[in-house]
Amino acid sequence: MDAAQEGALVERLAERLGPRGLLRDAAEIAPYEVSARHDGGRARGVLRPANAQELAWALRELIAAGAPLVTQGAATGLVGAGTPTAQGTQWVLSTQRLRDVLEIDAVNRSATVAAGYRLSDLNRAAAEPGLCFPIDLGADPTLGGMVATNTGGARLIRFGGVRENLLGVEAVLAHPAGQRVGSSRALRKNNTGLDWAQLLCGTFGAFGVITRATVKLHPVQQQSATALVAVDSVEAAVEMACELEQAMGEFVSAFEGMSRGALQAVARHQGGALPFAHVPAYAVLMEVSSAVPPGRGLDLEAMLMAWLEQHMAQGRIADAVLDKPAQLWRIRHAISEAVQSLGRMVAFDLAVTRSAFAAFRARALLLIGQLLPEANVCDFGHLGDGGVHLNMVVPQDTPAEAIGRLRDAIYDAVVREFGGSFSAEHGVGPYNQAYYHRFSEPAMQHLAGALQWQLDPARVLGNVWLGAVGT
Amino acid sequence: MDAAQEGALVERLAERLGPRGLLRDAAEIAPYEVSARHDGGRARGVLRPANAQELAWALRELIAAGAPLVTQGAATGLVGAGTPTAQGTQWVLSTQRLRDVLEIDAVNRSATVAAGYRLSDLNRAAAEPGLCFPIDLGADPTLGGMVATNTGGARLIRFGGVRENLLGVEAVLAHPAGQRVGSSRALRKNNTGLDWAQLLCGTFGAFGVITRATVKLHPVQQQSATALVAVDSVEAAVEMACELEQAMGEFVSAFEGMSRGALQAVARHQGGALPFAHVPAYAVLMEVSSAVPPGRGLDLEAMLMAWLEQHMAQGRIADAVLDKPAQLWRIRHAISEAVQSLGRMVAFDLAVTRSAFAAFRARALLLIGQLLPEANVCDFGHLGDGGVHLNMVVPQDTPAEAIGRLRDAIYDAVVREFGGSFSAEHGVGPYNQAYYHRFSEPAMQHLAGALQWQLDPARVLGNVWLGAVGT
Repeated sequence: MDAAQEGALVERLAERLGPRGLLRDAAEIAPYEVSARHDGGRARGVLRPANAQELAWALRELIAAGAPLVTQGAATGLVGAGTPTAQGTQWVLSTQRLRDVLEIDAVNRSATVAAGYRLSDLNRAAAEPGLCFPIDLGADPTLGGMVATNTGGARLIRFGGVRENLLGVEAVLAHPAGQRVGSSRALRKNNTGLDWAQLLCGTFGAFGVITRATVKLHPVQQQSATALVAVDSVEAAVEMACELEQAMGEFVSAFEGMSRGALQAVARHQGGALPFAHVPAYAVLMEVSSAVPPGRGLDLEAMLMAWLEQHMAQGRIADAVLDKPAQLWRIRHAISEAVQSLGRMVAFDLAVTRSAFAAFRARALLLIGQLLPEANVCDFGHLGDGGVHLNMVVPQDTPAEAIGRLRDAIYDAVVREFGGSFSAEHGVGPYNQAYYHRFSEPAMQHLAGALQWQLDPARVLGNVWLGAVGT
Repeated sequence: MDAAQEGALVERLAERLGPRGLLRDAAEIAPYEVSARHDGGRARGVLRPANAQELAWALRELIAAGAPLVTQGAATGLVGAGTPTAQGTQWVLSTQRLRDVLEIDAVNRSATVAAGYRLSDLNRAAAEPGLCFPIDLGADPTLGGMVATNTGGARLIRFGGVRENLLGVEAVLAHPAGQRVGSSRALRKNNTGLDWAQLLCGTFGAFGVITRATVKLHPVQQQSATALVAVDSVEAAVEMACELEQAMGEFVSAFEGMSRGALQAVARHQGGALPFAHVPAYAVLMEVSSAVPPGRGLDLEAMLMAWLEQHMAQGRIADAVLDKPAQLWRIRHAISEAVQSLGRMVAFDLAVTRSAFAAFRARALLLIGQLLPEANVCDFGHLGDGGVHLNMVVPQDTPAEAIGRLRDAIYDAVVREFGGSFSAEHGVGPYNQAYYHRFSEPAMQHLAGALQWQLDPARVLGNVWLGAVGT
């Protein structure tokens, strides 16, 4: 596109979208160029359509001009799928202003939400009739981004992730350019063909631009009990997850693991935050909760207390603190920042089965000891669902090649030795695209590539190529 | 294919698969030609490979010979997607002997199951460590069939359907012929691209032959309480579903609706089965259950009793029976057979949102009154999730055209007026293929067709064409 063509494009965009819908000024654009981890690229400009019609129109204009774009929600993603590349050729198509619909159907326990609303917006609206969208995340993404990324979070063990709670999406396709597809039918049962919602969920913006999502809601939890439990080993923590589920069944809503390294980081970052006299080898934050109001024959605090006492009497628990949930979650939520405060962080977002959890962790520690012995490992994560954020702090001058070698070795181990995942919940984006090609199934890449060609033959949409390398 | 070519094909199949793996005798083939509703077609022969390797080989042979086939599990489907057509040109590829793997990972709460195992087989194996696969159906299908059909059932409100509980599949493709794809990774978090499991789930065998499924397991319910409640109207039943969820939260595991017609059919079919003095206008079977063993501070029977008493005191419930679950479920499960015993049955498998449930039912009754006033409506179904089996008995001599007109009108109303589904849980097959083309989204059909061409360019696989008409 030459300058005259771009000038004409900008003129058309400015006329239809207005000053709030088109940003070209460097200062205005800047916030759309960086992501949650503060890396990012450069944008040609930012489009902020006010509704799906405008978005479809804008997408057609960009495609007609051959202008590539990246769809962006709240830019809270961690793999670069929502921020422009460094080349400065991409437009940012922001869904932030898609806020025309936020409908709660309390009788049906569902919500239809324009893509630009944030998780917190949805939960605020759903709370009025006593409902919630129980995807529990550290960030506050838009609904569109949540669907595109299939976000998981800390309470997946109880409620599932986005995929399990997604009833429908509406989207705009790149081909036919600007075609609107999908529906907001809030049906729990609907077995009538291919499911757009499932196809667009977890494909990172490559197949279309999500403009609306319809999701299941759940009753707000009316009581909960939370404990921080010190154990001797990860093996003991895994065993405890199974036992807690046997005793407390459907109440178990979180079972988070924290290594000594992670706990030490929190202790150093927030003096006195830990309720233990000594930092234990491993700790678990366990939460049980229920939508049943207190006083109706269910007392989860008493149940959890009895369970803990029994385990302490058996010498299975080194120490345990039953406290206000907020106090204990604060420790868990402090880890990420505390680890980052220690220096240069290297992060892994992995998952294995629970049965492989302890063995994989031991193998990973061995690999780190061999390849990057200076690393201070501060792993934590969603032990209950097999998710582990194997984060560590390394010396500032650690060569990128050394980190790359460790990354290769850990991914290789998790995927090939332990049948796990190299991207549990963060998804696929430019930051881990190469690993996608290396570790995801070739036949799947082949099919995904065919689909992507079908849905975006001009390859204008987003930052992820889901096809095989060279296709 | 001429006789000589077919002779050569049969010879190769016989040699590799053996007498248990290849059936050609009419008497042996007959059971594979009929489905649960006793309609069916004619098969060229039946292939019963013993494992996925054999299946892949057999599929290659059929494709090389240009021989079409239909994959069949337990033939319990209700839309004809698993039984051969009447032309007699299709082979049946039975997955019944795919029983080489049934692995329960109790620590991970998951199972990997060869496609030929039945739901009851899985549940028997899972029960040992106290787990279950909680898809509750009237039939006992194979796991492969359940995934292909995305079965729902009576406890979806609590546990979700197959889609929400599916972690992975292994499958064999028609193109490249015999290619094995997918995986048995039992990961609750794995965000690394297109999801074969979700793509094959609910596409009725059109995209590939499922050979293995990996599913989530749940703790076996250790206590439950069940009540049959008579109410004055469907509106009151819907309201009650919401109130029960508010009071009993995550415990609610079934909320089934039964019309007066359905209850009368049961009363006539099984004298004395109903525990009510008079057949009520509408009844609800409500079940609450928990994986928490009795004696640990949770008594669901007492909770449900208190809730019912409160509602009776308010005059909101006409009559209620709290009985052994088996007794009450027997009434619910008797409906289908009881209705069939009354004469010629016309069945609809529909879904709407709960909020539209009562209005849609009123509209449907109006349409039936106009178009087929002789019909005895015996509707029942999964009110909790919006599913309704709008079944009715019509005079034996009712013209097919009259039934067709009613079907058109009801489907039109459910899909276009009420945003519902014309196939809630039975899926798409030859019996409702025309309605798929009429009511499913054109853009979705277009994409599904492109995928089906990609995955089965010779169009040998199954009985369903997911593309648009004429493409």
